[in-house]
Amino acid sequence: MGKPVILVVNDDGIAAPGIRSLVNTMKHLGEVYVMAPDKPQSGMGHAITINEPLRITKVDIDNEIVEYKCNGTPVDCVKLAMHKVLPHRPDLIVSGINHGSNSTISVIYSGTMAAAIEAAIEGIPAIGFSLLDYSMDADFSACHDYIKTITENLILHGLPEGVCLNVNIPAISRDKIKGIKVCRQAKAIWVEKFDERLDPHNRNYYWLTGYLKKNENSEDTDEWALEQGYVTIVPTQIDLTAYKTIPLLNNWKFNV
Amino acid sequence: MGKPVILVVNDDGIAAPGIRSLVNTMKHLGEVYVMAPDKPQSGMGHAITINEPLRITKVDIDNEIVEYKCNGTPVDCVKLAMHKVLPHRPDLIVSGINHGSNSTISVIYSGTMAAAIEAAIEGIPAIGFSLLDYSMDADFSACHDYIKTITENLILHGLPEGVCLNVNIPAISRDKIKGIKVCRQAKAIWVEKFDERLDPHNRNYYWLTGYLKKNENSEDTDEWALEQGYVTIVPTQIDLTAYKTIPLLNNWKFNV
Repeated sequence: MGKPVILVVNDDGIAAPGIRSLVNTMKHLGEVYVMAPDKPQSGMGHAITINEPLRITKVDIDNEIVEYKCNGTPVDCVKLAMHKVLPHRPDLIVSGINHGSNSTISVIYSGTMAAAIEAAIEGIPAIGFSLLDYSMDADFSACHDYIKTITENLILHGLPEGVCLNVNIPAISRDKIKGIKVCRQAKAIWVEKFDERLDPHNRNYYWLTGYLKKNENSEDTDEWALEQGYVTIVPTQIDLTAYKTIPLLNNWKFNV
Repeated sequence: MGKPVILVVNDDGIAAPGIRSLVNTMKHLGEVYVMAPDKPQSGMGHAITINEPLRITKVDIDNEIVEYKCNGTPVDCVKLAMHKVLPHRPDLIVSGINHGSNSTISVIYSGTMAAAIEAAIEGIPAIGFSLLDYSMDADFSACHDYIKTITENLILHGLPEGVCLNVNIPAISRDKIKGIKVCRQAKAIWVEKFDERLDPHNRNYYWLTGYLKKNENSEDTDEWALEQGYVTIVPTQIDLTAYKTIPLLNNWKFNV
């Protein structure tokens, strides 16, 4: 068997340090292709571009790999790469390394994780990686070993249909990391604080800001484990059906 | 108890016929507020606007209700309405009526459902409604009775924490609809077909198009029931954890 074909995508854009770090780790594991947004696409969730045309541009950042940028979202990157760029179906899709956490409820807003979820929809093993540091000069040096061993396990074992992995890495030094912990998504919520301003024409505008508020602190959750210093893995699924609610709804009386 | 406060949002934009139809039904059930995008936002998934300022404009389409538009996504609409417009926390958030299906895997790409999912994150009972007709002159007349009875049941019974409803309505006449069926999300995939063109400057560009391909036809799925002529309800959850995969991952051997 030849080297696996690995597609690397992200949501912070092709120039972000996080994707360079992920590319460097993936070079040890396979034949790497990159398709990344030409600008930051954080918080884009599972958005796709249907009202504007998409463009692809070859770029030359790292001459060991084949690399493209596009004007789309992270999910567009996966679709465009698979259908217009890659020589054949990739064996693996990795997304990130995101600048900032995608633990708990953030998985739903995350462009990084949307790309991994899109890969799972396509039936391709996938992982979204995030470091808990939003800054553009974040230190990714502790990530390499953890990303490598998690990815090697994925290549070896595969994943069930419709499942991808959400990996978060605490922003602490390599020797402080306690290990890897498989978790569930903690219950939490982003509490919005709209920063209200007045423009020069005396009209209001708002910047969306906020902070994450935990609604639990159980030891089987990602947020708890990250606070303890673990790298967390949450298996993440594309089937959103709330199965336990089906029998409740079957008791509703519809008047039609 | 007074009339419930109902927030109506959508993703097709404030001028779409679907939201007018939903507003008219909701007027029978409570005190209606509208916050809708100022332009079509289909396929925006759970995107939020963090790189641009948001603006809210009061509009005067229906003088029985209080109505606003904004330049954000469907999820932004929920956040802005809750924090900047509504007199207090709404009792119910309804989204739609979407012009087009949000059954099966489309739930993940849907702005309509993202708004309902955002409401569920906020702990507010919510439903996303969709009619299986993408055209702007779709006939919403069969929707009223079904939307009314489903919403009345939601007001009466509530929903478990972290769950909202995904309701799809077949585009057939009222007398052809067989009833309401509670379902799970069918396994399906959007098969992409990029329409490749050349611009006047001889550069390639791509339009994302595609078609839905079912990967199953079980009688407990939304897609099957819609084809049979049922209105479908899929309870949809915000916890994406693939619980059954956790024990599998605990057998992985990490080399760090």
